[in-house]
Amino acid sequence: MHLIRPEPLTPEAFAPFGDVLDTTGAFRLINEGLCQRHHDRARLDFGPDGRAGISIFQAQPRALPYRFDLIERHPEGSQAFLPMTEHPFLVIVATSPEATPQAFLTNGAQGINLYRGTWHGVLTPLHAPGLFSVVDRIGSTPNLEEHRFTEVWTVLAP
Amino acid sequence: MHLIRPEPLTPEAFAPFGDVLDTTGAFRLINEGLCQRHHDRARLDFGPDGRAGISIFQAQPRALPYRFDLIERHPEGSQAFLPMTEHPFLVIVATSPEATPQAFLTNGAQGINLYRGTWHGVLTPLHAPGLFSVVDRIGSTPNLEEHRFTEVWTVLAP
Repeated sequence: MHLIRPEPLTPEAFAPFGDVLDTTGAFRLINEGLCQRHHDRARLDFGPDGRAGISIFQAQPRALPYRFDLIERHPEGSQAFLPMTEHPFLVIVATSPEATPQAFLTNGAQGINLYRGTWHGVLTPLHAPGLFSVVDRIGSTPNLEEHRFTEVWTVLAP
Repeated sequence: MHLIRPEPLTPEAFAPFGDVLDTTGAFRLINEGLCQRHHDRARLDFGPDGRAGISIFQAQPRALPYRFDLIERHPEGSQAFLPMTEHPFLVIVATSPEATPQAFLTNGAQGINLYRGTWHGVLTPLHAPGLFSVVDRIGSTPNLEEHRFTEVWTVLAP
């Protein structure tokens, strides 16, 4: 069997794939000291023919162990997933279709921004409602590549 | 006294000020039917010298009745507040500094996008953690105007 053990999402481990969007690190105090602004945390890239857009995704919750045989990527743009709940969610990424995929679990207060072209699994919340704000490329040209594995991968409970 | 009764946030009532970002209305099914994509819901505008960025805000929770005497606007860019929790938050907006401000309460599954130039109160969560993803203008030129009222406004409990 092809088994993957998820690890906690950290900026260091996720660096090849994208940004971790959370309240760690430096900030500016705004609003008379009542708000921390963790400024400009995502490397956004919508390509030459795209623009930024905000969409709302509602995905069906999954459970661990989770089986998948599909990854995808968006060659023309980055894609940020910003949870609208405090529930951890599962993030699957791969450096290439030939590589072993990696799985991460968020801590409930983290979003992610997948860099343009990063191979990733579909959105996989682990709790209802699977509600996310998504900042990705709006454009009229193709922006999806899919890879179907010949065998099924299973993400285990941590 | 200057009293404001908050109303539920609806797209119709909020139309002069910005977009309501939620899962109402039309969507595309993606990810083999397991995810609803409510596509490109915000009118983003970052001006001629700006670009989109994602920042994370953590604001101190407030309580109702809530007193304020300051509103602000960003003349060079739209600003979206996307809650990272399921808690309702308070939204204060005004058509101008001379107008009576209006207050809205979200339903716990709504973000907002303030149009470029909309007068608004500072970010006012009503529950901890006051955690939000913010999509606004990143740029090097001034983008903040403030207006201090001569009297204090009070937002009442609904």
